[in-house]
This record gives sequence, structure tokens and C-alpha cells, in this order.
Amino acid sequence: MSDQTEIVPEAEDEDAYALDQRAVARILYAVDIEDRQQLLELLEPLHAADIADMLEQINAFDRMRLVKLLGDEFDGEILSELDETLREEVMRTLNPQVLAEAVRELDSDDVVDLLEDLAEPQKAAILEVLEDSDRVAVEQSLTYPEYSAGRLMQREVVMAPEHWNVGEAIDYLRNRHDLPEQFYHIMLVDPKLRPVAKVALGKLMASRREVLLSDITSDTFEVIPATRYEGDVAYAFNQYHLISAPVVDENERLVGVITIDDAMAVLEEENEEDILRLAGVDEESRISDTVLNTTRRRFPWLAVNLGTAVLASLVISLFEEAIQTVVALAVLMPIVASMGGNAGTQSLTVAVRAIATRDLTGSNLFRVIRREVLVGALNGVAFAAIMAVVGLIWFGSPQLGAVIAAAMVINLVVAGLAGIAIPVALDKLGVDPALASGTFVTTVTDVVGFFAFLGLAGAVLL
Amino acid sequence: MSDQTEIVPEAEDEDAYALDQRAVARILYAVDIEDRQQLLELLEPLHAADIADMLEQINAFDRMRLVKLLGDEFDGEILSELDETLREEVMRTLNPQVLAEAVRELDSDDVVDLLEDLAEPQKAAILEVLEDSDRVAVEQSLTYPEYSAGRLMQREVVMAPEHWNVGEAIDYLRNRHDLPEQFYHIMLVDPKLRPVAKVALGKLMASRREVLLSDITSDTFEVIPATRYEGDVAYAFNQYHLISAPVVDENERLVGVITIDDAMAVLEEENEEDILRLAGVDEESRISDTVLNTTRRRFPWLAVNLGTAVLASLVISLFEEAIQTVVALAVLMPIVASMGGNAGTQSLTVAVRAIATRDLTGSNLFRVIRREVLVGALNGVAFAAIMAVVGLIWFGSPQLGAVIAAAMVINLVVAGLAGIAIPVALDKLGVDPALASGTFVTTVTDVVGFFAFLGLAGAVLL
Repeated sequence: MSDQTEIVPEAEDEDAYALDQRAVARILYAVDIEDRQQLLELLEPLHAADIADMLEQINAFDRMRLVKLLGDEFDGEILSELDETLREEVMRTLNPQVLAEAVRELDSDDVVDLLEDLAEPQKAAILEVLEDSDRVAVEQSLTYPEYSAGRLMQREVVMAPEHWNVGEAIDYLRNRHDLPEQFYHIMLVDPKLRPVAKVALGKLMASRREVLLSDITSDTFEVIPATRYEGDVAYAFNQYHLISAPVVDENERLVGVITIDDAMAVLEEENEEDILRLAGVDEESRISDTVLNTTRRRFPWLAVNLGTAVLASLVISLFEEAIQTVVALAVLMPIVASMGGNAGTQSLTVAVRAIATRDLTGSNLFRVIRREVLVGALNGVAFAAIMAVVGLIWFGSPQLGAVIAAAMVINLVVAGLAGIAIPVALDKLGVDPALASGTFVTTVTDVVGFFAFLGLAGAVLL
Repeated sequence: MSDQTEIVPEAEDEDAYALDQRAVARILYAVDIEDRQQLLELLEPLHAADIADMLEQINAFDRMRLVKLLGDEFDGEILSELDETLREEVMRTLNPQVLAEAVRELDSDDVVDLLEDLAEPQKAAILEVLEDSDRVAVEQSLTYPEYSAGRLMQREVVMAPEHWNVGEAIDYLRNRHDLPEQFYHIMLVDPKLRPVAKVALGKLMASRREVLLSDITSDTFEVIPATRYEGDVAYAFNQYHLISAPVVDENERLVGVITIDDAMAVLEEENEEDILRLAGVDEESRISDTVLNTTRRRFPWLAVNLGTAVLASLVISLFEEAIQTVVALAVLMPIVASMGGNAGTQSLTVAVRAIATRDLTGSNLFRVIRREVLVGALNGVAFAAIMAVVGLIWFGSPQLGAVIAAAMVINLVVAGLAGIAIPVALDKLGVDPALASGTFVTTVTDVVGFFAFLGLAGAVLL
């Protein structure tokens, strides 16, 4: 426990790894009284990721004062760990020499990550302070498209010719002075520097010197083109339990290595994006954003929703006469729409996830559509029966019960169909289904729900 | 590219890693004509994870025939990769000797994972076929609670006394004959077997023989209690970029190691669970589930939604008279409710994510609540202005415009407040906020929306 407590003091099991509120209070107190020594002592045991989290949680004024008080003790890792929305703010607060020093400490892939979001003059200023070899590495990575494997990879690779044996590899490693901080495999390459296999370090250590490297290669070996989308890279790491994988250029030559910790961070970002997009929240939205920024980011989705709500209202207005005659229709109509919206959201969420995890393919698409429609029909019949009884008891009208029951079945079948068909269609069109499916599906279920219920009521009751 | 094509034939960049439909068709054809040799040849290049995905995508009848045709060539890894809902079905299809053989091939942590979900007699039958040492390891892991670090860890640990130097460690490793398949760090322990630090294999290889292990330990070192919840473990791996971490028992003695690939799988499951729960879908729900199971799994959430929809209808029924007098109220009222529901969902999704990523804490809770309420107020005013104009143009009534505008501001402020307060309150009560927040928040926004709009209309217009 003693070591873990170093990182998260007073952590209890029920709140493991949450930042301790009292520790934050002590840090802010040190900032208030401008006690630099105390601040350094309080931050010393914290991991850069936790310091970044704390900077995200305190307000902008405290953040500025804390960063200024830290001065040249500001650790570059904190910048890497910080949310992109706050990075620029913190980088502006840092004095240029401190910033240069902080960036020089970082690995080339972390510098690439920092630079991506900066404006040109800032980017140039930071590139200038890097050592020559680092600058070249960073500039080469930046030639790959954003969100590509080429941006994600480390350029430091440990490689060996495919014909070496264990002894040669160990001697080579022990004589190299510039081994990367983290590496878990030796990549075997052919004479044209194309990766052909990899050998785990543990396996290397455990084998006799005369064993050929080619006899102890890992079973699973994935080669990643530098232009591949980072989300696909993260999927491959998760699917094939990779720890590291070689990255190749367009000539299939080894240019870098991606390790699982970077892939894990991408996977988490992709999931975050899906969750937020499904709820109509801009995926750049952060809890540390200002009120005005948040309002602006939320507005467009609400505006789209207003449009679809007005569309549904237009459908209702077609039946004003029926509502005036039987006011119970106005009371009951939101139930049909709401049930359709919920059932549609269930189907579309399952579809969006299945698309993201490559579980919905041409092989099972029609079976999945059929299943969703049948599920909609079965739950439709169940809730139709319930609502028929509710309608009968509440308003004493068997016809009203029959109308709402029929509308319920129709809307839940449509919900199941739209819930699968719309995300699949958007995906085929190259639009992220998480982004737009929700609006389309609930528009369909609102319009169909009101139309079916009020239309049937008009025909049966009037 | 050649190696990657081995795993996913004909993969294109735009559909990287998706299972190829033609390959699946060829496999199913081999099953149809019962050509075992061809089936084996087609499956040979596929990773167990891809075979499991394929089994999930084909129907139950094809699945049974394929597994039977594979016979004793069935790979135990496929079981580990398979969705839990299908595992039992496939295990029943396998003949007991084949199953025993398949399970014997697996690592102890994978066997634990398989056994967790089985009924007692099946569990006992599988434990019986394991080798003695494996059975003891599996049984010990099963003594830890479900979803704990103890269930997740491998029991094979490579450890060394803290006072050793690099030479001693290398000699020891090279003389051990039972090193685990995958290991990335040597855990340093004190005389009581408590872990005190770890040394990366790469660092070990790169250091001179006389260097002390204690001088080349990793900066970040997290010790995980065996009883810790696996979701917290996954969070720590992602937050601190861990590759492996030691697990300790209640006496702080080293009992196992968790590696990042297992943590990544847990992180992905946790995210999956959050996404599905937010949409009211049972997190055990799978795209390969039967129609009846899916209907049953979706029913409860829809039933809860029906209850809340009826509640909203009861609010509407309080104002039947007003609606009969001004039927425009029935036309416009869903707009207010719908906007509130959407704004509330935005706030609650941000809150649920922030709770999951430990970004919403005591330090910033009140600032976040204030922010959401202000965002609701600002967007409320914006949409109030738009709706006032719509109400005026559509129905020619300035009063109606004023009423809908006022109701919009009220409901969007309430949405922002409820969207944060409800998930935070549920979290404090120990309920997963992803599970229940949605219903509560939309119930609040429906009830408040209808009440504010119809109530104000009754006061102003009648």
C-alpha cells in the first residue's frame, strides 16, 4: 500500500484513484500564500497525470497562479497529460524558456501530440527549441495525416536481422547506448528493412544463446501501415492483445513502433467520443470548459432537435380537430412517441456499438435487422396490451384502448427498423453513426408515433 | 502487408480489421459440404479472436455444425475470446474430451474467466481435468470476489530480491525453465515478499551487470490490492500508463501480476457497459442474442419509461380544459418537453463520463453545477426567443409566444440542474449513474416541461 499511497494519498477502495479533495485544498492554500517550497513538496509525490487532472478541476485563475508559482519546476509530462482545451492556456502562462525546457524533456510522439493543435507560429517556436535529431523526427511524424498511425508511433525502434540468434541479439542490445525507455519486442527485419516477425524480450531472456530468433517469434504479428486510422490501430491492439506492433511506410519499410499504452489512450478517446456524440454533445466538450464555450457547443444539437420537434408538432397540428373533440388524445399521444423514442434509442445504441466493434457486418446484417423488427413487434404487442387496459380504465373507451395499442405496435416496429437501418446507412455513407443517428431515429419515431396514433384515432373515434 | 493479410484477408484501409464477408461465406460452404480439411485450411490463418467474432455473427445452427466439424482441432483460445452469452452454448456442443483439452491449453487467468459464469457441476467437471498446479491456481483466484484484481491477475510472477544486481537477475532468468509466456517487468520484493519496485526488461538488458536493480527501477509503480474492483484497476493502467502492476494480498505480499492487455479489455467492457446503460440497454445484451432474450432484456427499461410517460400524461390531464380551449397548446407542448429532455441528456452524459473518469470531484462539483445551470439558462433564453417568434408567426398570438418562451427557459435550467445533480446523487448512493440517470432526468424534464408550459398557459391565456 505504501507505494500506491504515494500517488493517491488517503485513497479508499470505494474511491480508488479519485483525486483527494483535502490534498487539492492544501495545494491551493500553498498557491494562496505563494509558498513555492510547500507547493513543490505537495506536488512531488503526484504523477503528472494527477497534476493535470487537478489543473483541470480548479478554476482558471488558480490554474494560472499555480503554474506561475511552479515556474521552472513545471514538468513537460503535465502538458502531455492535460486536456487539449487547456493546453494552450497553460502554454501561454508558461514563460518561453520554461516551456522550451519542458518540451525538450518529452518523447518525440508526445511532442507531436502537443504540436498538432497549435497555431503555426507557436508550432515553429517550439520546433526551434528541440534538438536537431528530435526536430527531424517530429517533423517527419507531422507529415503523416492527423489521427494516423504515423502520428501515434515512436520513431525509436529496436530491430535485428531475421537470421540472428539469441546471443547476437543480446550482445547487440547490451552494446547499444540509445535504447528507448520502453520497449517490449525486438522487431526482425529482412534486408530491405521490412518487418517480418517480432521476438518478446522475456522469450529472448529465457532462450539459449545459439537459438535462432526466427524460432522464438511471437504467434501474433500485426504490421500497421503508417497511414492507418488510429481508431483501427486501437481496435487491432484490443482484438489481438498486442503489446507492440511495427509501423511501415508505403514501401513496407519499418519506420516506427506503436505500444499498447498509446493504443489504450486512443481506445478511451474513441469511446468517449461515441458516448458524447450519442447524447448530442460535442466530443471536444470538457467539464473544464467555460460557460460560454459550453453553451455554444451544445446549441447546434439543440437547434437540430428543435427542428425535429417542430416537425412533430406539424404532424400534431394536422389533427387539431380530433384533439379538440377527444382531448384524451392530447393526454395519451406523448406516451406513444416516448415509447418509440426509447425503443429506437435502444436499437440504435446496440447498432452503433456493433459497428464500432466490427460485430455488425454483411454476414449478419439482415439477421440483425429481422431480429430488431421482431423484438419491436413483441415488445410492441406487450405494451399494446398494457396500454389498451390503461386506456380502457382511464378513459373508459375500448376504442381509445384499441387505437393506442395499434399505434404502439406500429411505432415499436418502426423504431426497431429505423434503429438499425439509420446507423448502418450513415456508416455506409461515411458519416459517424454515433453523431447523427439519434436525431434521425427519434424524428422518425415521433412523426410515426403521432401520425399513427392521431390518424387511427381520427378514423376510429370520429 | 503480407503478415497482416494473414489475419484479415482482403482488408482495405476503410474497413480495416472487419471480418471479410467472402471469407465467412467460404467457411460456411465448407461446413455445408462437411469438408473438414478445407475448414481447417480456411481457419488456420485466422486469429482466435476473429474466429470467435465469426461464430458470434453466424446463426446458432451453423455455429453448432462448424464447432462439431472442427472436432478436436477446436482451439481453447476461441472460448476465451467468445462472448459470455455464447460460451455455454459452444461448450455444450463440444465433446467433453475436446473441451478438457481446449481448457488445459489456456493460461490460469483465462480459465478463471471461463469458469466464473458456469454452473457448479460444469465448473467442477472442468476443474477436474486441469493439472494439479493449474487447478490450485484457478481455485485460489476464484476465492477473490468477482470483478476483482485477484480474478484478473496471472499468478505466474517473475520476482527478484531488492538487493540483487543486473548480473544476478539475468543469470537467474536464464536458468529458470518456467518463465511466463508474457512478462515485461521483474518485480523487486523485500524479505517478506512485499513488492517494493519493478525493473523493465528493456532497462535490464541495457544495463551493466554490476548495476544494482534498485538503481534502475521504473518511475511509476502502482501496487494493486487483490480485492480492488477491476474497473479501478483499468483506470489506473490508463491514467498512469502502466504496462504491468503487482497484485498483493491482505498481508501486502505479492500474489500475482496484472498486465495491460487484460486492463485494456476491462476498460473496453466498462465503456461498453456505460454506453449501453445510458441507452437503457442491458449490458449483457449482445447482437448475437436470440429475439426472445433480447425482447426480455429490453422490456424492463421500456416498462420504466412507460411509467414515467404515464406520469407526464397525468400532468397533461390536469390541463384538459385549457387544451380544449386553446388546441395550439397540444401542438406546442411536446416541443418544450423534448428540448428539456435533450438538454438534460447532454448534461447528464457529461456528468456520467466525468464521474467515470474521476474528473468530477468535491473540488469542482459546485462550479460544474453552476456552469450547467448557466448553460441551461443561456440556451434557454436563445431558444425562448426563437420559439416566441415561432409561436407568434404560427398561431398569431404574442401571449402564446411569451408562454412557450418562459416555459423553455424554466425547463432548460431545470434540465441542467437535474442533469448534474441526479447522476452525482446516484453515485453517492452507490448506484451506477449510467444505469438510472436517464429515466430520472427525462421524467423531471417532461413533468416540468408540461407543467410549466400548460400551467403558464392556463394562467395567461384563459
